Amino acid sequence: MEPHAMNVLLVYAHPEPRSLNGSLKDFSIRRLEAAGNTVQVSDLYAMQWKAALDADDGAARPSAARFDPALDLRRALESGTLRADIAREQDKLRWADAVILQFPLWWFSLPAILKGWVDRVYTDGFGYGVGEHSDRHWGDRYGEGVLAGKRAMLVVTIGGWAPHYGPRGINGPLDDILFPIQHGILFYPGFEVLPAHAIYRTSRIDDAGFAQACAALGERLDALWTTAPIAFRKQNAGDYLIPELTLRPELAPGRAGFAVHVEPEPRGPGHDPAEQDVASLAP
Amino acid sequence: MEPHAMNVLLVYAHPEPRSLNGSLKDFSIRRLEAAGNTVQVSDLYAMQWKAALDADDGAARPSAARFDPALDLRRALESGTLRADIAREQDKLRWADAVILQFPLWWFSLPAILKGWVDRVYTDGFGYGVGEHSDRHWGDRYGEGVLAGKRAMLVVTIGGWAPHYGPRGINGPLDDILFPIQHGILFYPGFEVLPAHAIYRTSRIDDAGFAQACAALGERLDALWTTAPIAFRKQNAGDYLIPELTLRPELAPGRAGFAVHVEPEPRGPGHDPAEQDVASLAP
Repeated sequence: MEPHAMNVLLVYAHPEPRSLNGSLKDFSIRRLEAAGNTVQVSDLYAMQWKAALDADDGAARPSAARFDPALDLRRALESGTLRADIAREQDKLRWADAVILQFPLWWFSLPAILKGWVDRVYTDGFGYGVGEHSDRHWGDRYGEGVLAGKRAMLVVTIGGWAPHYGPRGINGPLDDILFPIQHGILFYPGFEVLPAHAIYRTSRIDDAGFAQACAALGERLDALWTTAPIAFRKQNAGDYLIPELTLRPELAPGRAGFAVHVEPEPRGPGHDPAEQDVASLAP
Repeated sequence: MEPHAMNVLLVYAHPEPRSLNGSLKDFSIRRLEAAGNTVQVSDLYAMQWKAALDADDGAARPSAARFDPALDLRRALESGTLRADIAREQDKLRWADAVILQFPLWWFSLPAILKGWVDRVYTDGFGYGVGEHSDRHWGDRYGEGVLAGKRAMLVVTIGGWAPHYGPRGINGPLDDILFPIQHGILFYPGFEVLPAHAIYRTSRIDDAGFAQACAALGERLDALWTTAPIAFRKQNAGDYLIPELTLRPELAPGRAGFAVHVEPEPRGPGHDPAEQDVASLAP
């Protein structure tokens, strides 16, 4: 735990406050505050968060004009006319030193209301579309960006069994299922991404199981500032050809897939996708 | 093209009718109908589809009772009290011989409104939670289920460049980014999943580019009934240990990741993820 207070934004998406997710959210707030952190919570269901990005989110424009999700939200951002609900979430992200997304894994991805938080808050000029484009720098993304220097972590509850999400489990490895979120949504705008914390078989958790779940989650929250992030490769640090943005042939030669975008040196407490990649290449 | 009419459900998610997506949707309807098919469209934005699954979607229950997304929607399904918007979509799915999901790839996944169509329409007892559980059969899923015998295909528009989504592209291979959708959302309830059709660099498409895009999409639509599906392994056909649901050790020995869940024999017109898997294992 840090001696000084850090700012933590907890973005939480479950429709039932008296659920396991609701209890874990309350536990996380208490644990983080007890460690001296300042916590803000975006309880998306309680906020009745608008999930669908649409023309109402854009800057004022002639009624005849087409709605362009990227352009119109960028105009709203630059003209200071973003909808208040979106502007508030962007302010929370600017304020935060660390962001935790807590959600139940629904259909191997984010619940719609949380996906809609990403779709609407990550506007052009904030979540993407920042930085210069040249032959050596393809925008500030994948390791650079508005959220660079902040940490992010997923806390995911899962109804299924852990082996179903293992290296050869039928659902696919959890690290791969989460790659579009951890790499594509968190690392993309600059976050340092900590290994995800997953809780399995949530329908079978009794009081003893809940105490265990809180103990395990508590350890992750206590280590929020010290856990080694996933070693995703930075886009503009020389590993990728520009503008193809393919990994240089001399790196992970002959290989492909998500795992090549993680530096091979194992980091972190056994959660590093690079380790799973090694498993996937074992003869 | 089939001599007799087949039923096609087009689930479409874009907020601007005058967008590239809107034009491709209109083209698809005309092309499919010209080939003798009957088409229904779920235009989620035009329908003002409710994206967030919440307690309003459940069966009537004591106000003191907790909302359980799985249990309460199952009760509503079994008691015939599902919300009309959900019941209508389930009826369209039962009616359809093929389902096309057309959407812009937002943050490497479905737009929130389309994810919310999955979250709400795939109720316990319809999208999952069907079939017996035994030591040889772990429910009707991954190749079996309510939607077995139907075909499904993704039509995805992408702002980025194709090489960025290639085997070594920085975003990850498109087939892997789409695996949680094609395998986890489409194959899971029984669909035969055709290779996805992707259209890249959508912001740069002029009239000539649009004509090319329609020609390419038209070929895929004409081949909707003849294209070989992705050879995902069926859960209950003997390839997986039950209840671990891990791939039997003698199959794809020593390997891991999404690709092991596709049978190695190449099928389909060069879209088979198994081929990319071979690339990822080349020395």
